[in-house]
Amino acid sequence: MLKIKLSAFAVVVGSMLLNAQTLSSPNGEFKMEFSLKNGSPYYNLKYKGETVVEDSRLGLRLLKDGDIQFASELERKDQQGQDLLEGFVKTKEEFSSKNEKWDPVLGEKKTYVNHYNELAVTLNQTANERHIIVKFRLFNDGLGFRYEFPEQKNLNYFVIQEEDSEIDLPWDAKAWWLTGDYDSQEYQTQTTNISEIPQRWPSSYDGNASQTTIKNAVQSPLMLKKEGKQPLYINLAEAAVVNYAASNLEVDATTYKFKTHLTPDGQGAKGYIQTPAVSPWRTIIVSDKAEEVLDSKMLFNLNEPTHYKDTSYIKPTKYMGVWWEMIIGKSQWAYSTAKNVHIGKTDFSSLTPNGNHAANNTKVKEYIDFASAHGFDALLIEGWNAGWEDWFGHSKEFVFDFITPYPDFDIEMLNQYAHQKGIRLMMHHETSGSATNYERWADKAFQLMNKYGYPSVKTGYVGNIIPRGEHHYSQWTINHYLRIAEKAHEYKIMVNSHESVRPSGQSRTYPNWIAAEAARGTEFEAFGGNNPDHQTILPFTRFMGGPMDYTPGIFQTKLDYYFPGDKRFVKTTLAKQLALYVVMYSPLQMAADLPENYQRHLDAFQFIKDVAADWDDTVILSAEPGDYIHTARKAKGKDEWFVGGITDENARRFTVDFSFLPKGKKYEATVYQDGKDADYISNPQSYHIFKKTVSSKSKISIDLARSGGYAISLKPLK
Amino acid sequence: MLKIKLSAFAVVVGSMLLNAQTLSSPNGEFKMEFSLKNGSPYYNLKYKGETVVEDSRLGLRLLKDGDIQFASELERKDQQGQDLLEGFVKTKEEFSSKNEKWDPVLGEKKTYVNHYNELAVTLNQTANERHIIVKFRLFNDGLGFRYEFPEQKNLNYFVIQEEDSEIDLPWDAKAWWLTGDYDSQEYQTQTTNISEIPQRWPSSYDGNASQTTIKNAVQSPLMLKKEGKQPLYINLAEAAVVNYAASNLEVDATTYKFKTHLTPDGQGAKGYIQTPAVSPWRTIIVSDKAEEVLDSKMLFNLNEPTHYKDTSYIKPTKYMGVWWEMIIGKSQWAYSTAKNVHIGKTDFSSLTPNGNHAANNTKVKEYIDFASAHGFDALLIEGWNAGWEDWFGHSKEFVFDFITPYPDFDIEMLNQYAHQKGIRLMMHHETSGSATNYERWADKAFQLMNKYGYPSVKTGYVGNIIPRGEHHYSQWTINHYLRIAEKAHEYKIMVNSHESVRPSGQSRTYPNWIAAEAARGTEFEAFGGNNPDHQTILPFTRFMGGPMDYTPGIFQTKLDYYFPGDKRFVKTTLAKQLALYVVMYSPLQMAADLPENYQRHLDAFQFIKDVAADWDDTVILSAEPGDYIHTARKAKGKDEWFVGGITDENARRFTVDFSFLPKGKKYEATVYQDGKDADYISNPQSYHIFKKTVSSKSKISIDLARSGGYAISLKPLK
Repeated sequence: MLKIKLSAFAVVVGSMLLNAQTLSSPNGEFKMEFSLKNGSPYYNLKYKGETVVEDSRLGLRLLKDGDIQFASELERKDQQGQDLLEGFVKTKEEFSSKNEKWDPVLGEKKTYVNHYNELAVTLNQTANERHIIVKFRLFNDGLGFRYEFPEQKNLNYFVIQEEDSEIDLPWDAKAWWLTGDYDSQEYQTQTTNISEIPQRWPSSYDGNASQTTIKNAVQSPLMLKKEGKQPLYINLAEAAVVNYAASNLEVDATTYKFKTHLTPDGQGAKGYIQTPAVSPWRTIIVSDKAEEVLDSKMLFNLNEPTHYKDTSYIKPTKYMGVWWEMIIGKSQWAYSTAKNVHIGKTDFSSLTPNGNHAANNTKVKEYIDFASAHGFDALLIEGWNAGWEDWFGHSKEFVFDFITPYPDFDIEMLNQYAHQKGIRLMMHHETSGSATNYERWADKAFQLMNKYGYPSVKTGYVGNIIPRGEHHYSQWTINHYLRIAEKAHEYKIMVNSHESVRPSGQSRTYPNWIAAEAARGTEFEAFGGNNPDHQTILPFTRFMGGPMDYTPGIFQTKLDYYFPGDKRFVKTTLAKQLALYVVMYSPLQMAADLPENYQRHLDAFQFIKDVAADWDDTVILSAEPGDYIHTARKAKGKDEWFVGGITDENARRFTVDFSFLPKGKKYEATVYQDGKDADYISNPQSYHIFKKTVSSKSKISIDLARSGGYAISLKPLK
Repeated sequence: MLKIKLSAFAVVVGSMLLNAQTLSSPNGEFKMEFSLKNGSPYYNLKYKGETVVEDSRLGLRLLKDGDIQFASELERKDQQGQDLLEGFVKTKEEFSSKNEKWDPVLGEKKTYVNHYNELAVTLNQTANERHIIVKFRLFNDGLGFRYEFPEQKNLNYFVIQEEDSEIDLPWDAKAWWLTGDYDSQEYQTQTTNISEIPQRWPSSYDGNASQTTIKNAVQSPLMLKKEGKQPLYINLAEAAVVNYAASNLEVDATTYKFKTHLTPDGQGAKGYIQTPAVSPWRTIIVSDKAEEVLDSKMLFNLNEPTHYKDTSYIKPTKYMGVWWEMIIGKSQWAYSTAKNVHIGKTDFSSLTPNGNHAANNTKVKEYIDFASAHGFDALLIEGWNAGWEDWFGHSKEFVFDFITPYPDFDIEMLNQYAHQKGIRLMMHHETSGSATNYERWADKAFQLMNKYGYPSVKTGYVGNIIPRGEHHYSQWTINHYLRIAEKAHEYKIMVNSHESVRPSGQSRTYPNWIAAEAARGTEFEAFGGNNPDHQTILPFTRFMGGPMDYTPGIFQTKLDYYFPGDKRFVKTTLAKQLALYVVMYSPLQMAADLPENYQRHLDAFQFIKDVAADWDDTVILSAEPGDYIHTARKAKGKDEWFVGGITDENARRFTVDFSFLPKGKKYEATVYQDGKDADYISNPQSYHIFKKTVSSKSKISIDLARSGGYAISLKPLK
C-alpha cells in the first residue's frame, strides 16, 4: 500500500517538475499553467475550473540587429536560431504577491486595488546563451503576462520581426471587433462570431484620413462572449505600451486563436529594443458577469506608478468648444480662401477672409459668455491658428507652428476675457500627423500656453504620420506621444490626444495624459453615423485602457435643422446623450453642441452642468456588451451620485435599484429620461424630467426608447 | 530680289518663332538652344561651335498628391496626364543678364564674379492648365538650368516620382565617377569611359556603414573628358540643393546619356513640393582647359545670397584633433568596457574604464599644449561625451545627448585651460545618423557650446538615418542639415558636417556651414586605403560645390609604426600631404596626425603652421584630373602666397612658374619637396626643404615622386 502511494506521490511530484507551473489568483478562481513543450513556452488559463484559454504559445521572431537596411532585406534568412521562440529551458521560477491600493490622480474610484499573484519564469535559450523572463500576474479579474529582456552579455540590442503571443480559445465566441489597422480605430464595431470574422472583414471598414488595414486582423481591446447557459465574458487587451509598438490581433477563425501582430515602421521592422526592456502586458480579463469586466482596473494596475512629483495641475475638466459647428459644416477651421499658405512667410492679414471662420473674436466671446454662465471649466477653440487653409492631404511637414493666431483671433484679449469670466481656454494643436514638426515647436507652443494660462491642450493626428512610413501605432510614434506627455508635464499641461494610439492604462504613469479620442467618436455622427449600439460597446473595448474624449451632449441630433434636406443625424435620443456622461468615463467631458441648442433645452442641459467628471466610486449596475449599460457613480469628495443608462437599437425597461446609495440617507433624484414617444429617428428630442426623493431602498423603473437612455443626478436632502 | 530676301527673312524669323530659343554666354562661346518637340522641352549646348550636349529632354514625373500611402501604392497609375513631361506650349520667354561681384565670407578668392545671360521659358501644360518655368543661365564657364514651379491655381502641392533631366553627350568620354548611392560618397573614384560604366559598376564599391547603391548610376559632381587632339573637360553637378532631394545620375552607356535620379524617402517618393518652389540647378561646366573647370565658381554663383546679418563669427580655422589615434586603432572613443548604455540613466562613473579612452583630461591637455604652442586655432576632441559604448549599428535613436561628458573629461577645466593657452576647443556631435534625436538636443547642445566658448562643431552621420527609411540625401535629411546650419547660426556656431550630403554651393546662403566631409577622406587611408590619384580627382568632383574637410597632414604614413606587421599606410609621400593644404581648398584645415609625429618633423610641420585657409586669390597653374594638380593661392589680407602640387601614381617633373606673383617684388620661397629617393610605399618620409628668393619672373623645376608632391610658402622680402 505504502509503495503504491509513494509511487503516486512521486508521479505527482514528477509531473510538477516536468516544466509545468501553476499560478492561482488570490481568490483561487483563476489558474494559469505555464509549460515548456519542445522548448517552446506555453500557458493556459482556467476560470472556475473551466478552460478559457487552451495551451497557447509565446515567443518572438527577431530580425538581425544592426543589419536592417530597407524593406527588401527584411525577409528572414535562416533566422530560426536567432528567434526567441524555442530552444528554451526553464532555469528559475519566482512566485510573489502584491496587494496594494493606489489612488489615481483622476479616476472612476478614489482608490484602485492592485492584488495579484505573480510567477516569473526565467527561460534560457541554451543555443544562444541568453535568457528572457516571462512574467505572469494573475488577478481576481484575470491574467496579465509580459516578456522581460534583462541586460546580459548575449542580449543587448535586437530588432523585432514579430511578437507571437497567442491566445487560443477552446470555443467559438461572439466578438465585438474593429478592423485591424496600423493607423485608425475610427471604425464601426462589428459583432460576429470569431468564426465569421474573415467573412465580415472586407466590409468591416469605411474610409479614413489615415488607415492601413491588416487583413483578417482585429484591434484590441477586443470583447468576446462565450454564449450559452453559463456565459463567459472575455476581454483581450494590452497594458503599458511604452517604447514598443501597439498590437493588433491576427485571427485564426477555425481554431479560435488570436495572436499578437505588432505595428511596423516604414521598413517593416516592429521594434528596436535595447535591454533591459519589457514588452507591454497582454491582458485577458474573464468573468461570468459583464459588469465585472467594466469594473476591471487591470490595465491600470499593470502600469508603473507615476514618477511625476507635482500632479496638482491635473484636474477634471468640463468644457465646451468652438468645434461642432465646423464638424457639421456650418463654419470652417480656415480663415481665408487661400489654398496654399506658408507658415512664417504668408501674411495672413493680407489674405481674403472666407467669411466663415469660426474662431473669430466675436464668436469666441459669445461661446465664452455661455460657457462661463453655465459653469464650465474651459472652452476649446479649434481653428485659432494660422495654417488651416492647406492643413490636410499634402503630407506638409511644416504645417503649423502652433503659436501664430489668425488675424481675427486676439489671443491675449480672449484669454483675459475668459479669465475675467472665470473660465480658461483650451488649446488646440492639430499636428496633421506631422509629429516631427510638432516636436520642433512643442516648447514654444507650450510656452505660449503658459503665457496665456491654457491648462490643457487637445492634440490631433489627422492624416499620415511624418516621419513618413511610420504609423500611428508604431513604436516611434508611441514614443512621440509619450515625449509630448512628458514635455507637457514640464509645463504643467494636461493632454487630450485625438487620432493617437488608444490608451493602455498609461494614465497611471503619465497622469497628465488625461484622455484620448482614438476611436470613433461623436464627430462620426456627422461623417457617416455611429450605430445605435456603438456606445454600449465602447466601454467594453476602447475604454478598458483609459478614458475617451467621446464629446457627447448633442441635443440637436438631426442636422437638417441647419441644412434643409440633410439626412445626417446623431443616432441617439437626447436623453441618451445625457447618460453618456456617466456611462462613458472621462475626466475630460465636453458639452459638444452649439450654445443655442443648449439654450433651447436648458432643463436637460442642467444635467450636463451638474454631472461630475471625477469619482470616488463607480458601480456598474447592469451591462451587456452591444445591448445596454447602466452605471452609477459618486462624485469625488462630494455626497452626490449620478446614474446613467443607455440601450442599443432595442427599447428596454430597466429598474434602477438605488441600493448603491449609503443607507439611511435621503437624496433628491432628478431623472432625465426619454419621453413616452421618444424615438432616436423620428422624435429624438422628446424627454421627460422629474424629481423624486430616494434612498438606498428605492427603485425606479425607466423605459428607454430605442437608442435611448436616462440620466439621474442625486443630491443629498438635508 | 526683294521678295526672295523677304522670304528668307521670314523663314529665319519663322524658325525662331517655331519654339526654338537660343541663349548665348556673355563671351559668346557657349550657345544653348531650347526647343519643344511634341510638347516636351529640350535643350542643347554648344561650346566654341561644337555640340557638347545634344538635344536632351527635361521634365518630371509626379505621384498623386495626397495619396501617398505606402510603398506598395506608389506605382504610377495612369499618371501620364499628370506628369510634367509633355503637353507643353511655350507662352513666354524672358531674357535677362547679370554681372555682379560678391565676396564670399570665406573663399578661394576675395571676390567671385557672377556673370551670365539668362533665359526663362514659361511652359504651359494646356491639358492641366498649369505652367512651369525652365530657367537657363549661361555663364562663360557653362550652363545651369532649373525648374521653377510658381504658385497657381492648379499647382499647389505635388509629389515627385522622379525628375527626368537629361544630359546627352554626343560621344563617349572618360569619366571619373563614384558608385551611385543614396547614403554614401565614400567610395574610390573609378576611371573608365562612359561606355564601360555598367561593366565596372559591380566592383566599384566597398562596404560602408550606411549605403544604398543604385545600379548603373553614378554620383555627382561627375567629371568627364572628351579625349583626343582637342580635349574637352565637362563637369556635371547640381547647385542649391535646398528643400529637395539630392540627385545621382543614371547612365545610358550606349547613348552616353545621363539622367537625374533623385534620392527617395522610405516610401519611394522623391520630393514633397509646395509652390512656389524651385528645383536645384543642374550644372554643366565645359572648358578646353581642365584648369578652368577647377576655377569655376558656377555652383556658388547659382545659390542665393545669404540672409545672415552677422557673419563675423565665421572664420578660417586650422585645427588639430584627438582623432587619428582612434581612427588607426590606438585608442578608443568609448570610455568604458560596457556594451550597452542608457543616456540619462547609466552612471558612467560606475562603469569599468577600458583604459584606452582617448578623450581624457591628461591627454587632451597634452594636445592643447602642442596645438597652442604651434599656433592652431582649435582642437577637436572626439569621444568626449557619454554614449560611445554602443553608438553604432543598433539603430539606437537616443544614442547621445551631446551635453554629458565622460567622467574623465572635465569640460569646464579643459576649456579654461585651452583658452588660457590661446586656443579653442572644437565640439564634436556624432549623431549616428539619428537626426531626430540630434534635433531634439540641438538647442541644449549649442547652449553648452556657447557656455564653454566652442566656436565650431564637427557633426557626423555615421550609420543609417533616423527617421528610419530616409537616406542621407533624401529631401527630409537635406532639410535637416539646413535646419541644423540655421540653428547653429542663431548660436553663432560654424558647422563642419561629416557623412552629410556633398555641398552644392550652399555656403553662399549658409556661410556658417563652412565645410563637409561627404567623400572618402584621409580616414579611409586607415580603412582600406585611398588610391594614389584620389586627391588629383576630388577637386574636380567633390570640391566643385564646396570645401571638403579632407583632414590631411599625416606624416607617419605607415601604420606599422604603431602596430608591427600592420600593412596599412597612407598612400602618399609626406611632401604630398603638405601640398594638400593648398590643392584641396577648405577654410577648415586639420593637421590630422598625432603631435608626436609632427614633433619628429618640425621642419616639415612649419608649412602646415604657415599655410593660410582663406584666400584673396587662387591660380590653377596646371591640372589634369586623375593625374596632377598644381595650385597657387594668396592668403586673404596678407602678402603671402602658397603653392602646392601633387601627382598620381606617376612620378612627374613640374616647373613652377611664379608669374602669378605681383611684378617687381621679391619673395622668400620655402620649398618642401619629395626627397630624391622618396617613394610613397618604401620611403614616404624622405623630403627636402630649401629656401630661394623668387619674383614673378622666376621658375623652379620640381621632381614629384610617385604619389608625391611639393608645397611652397612665399613671404615678401623686405
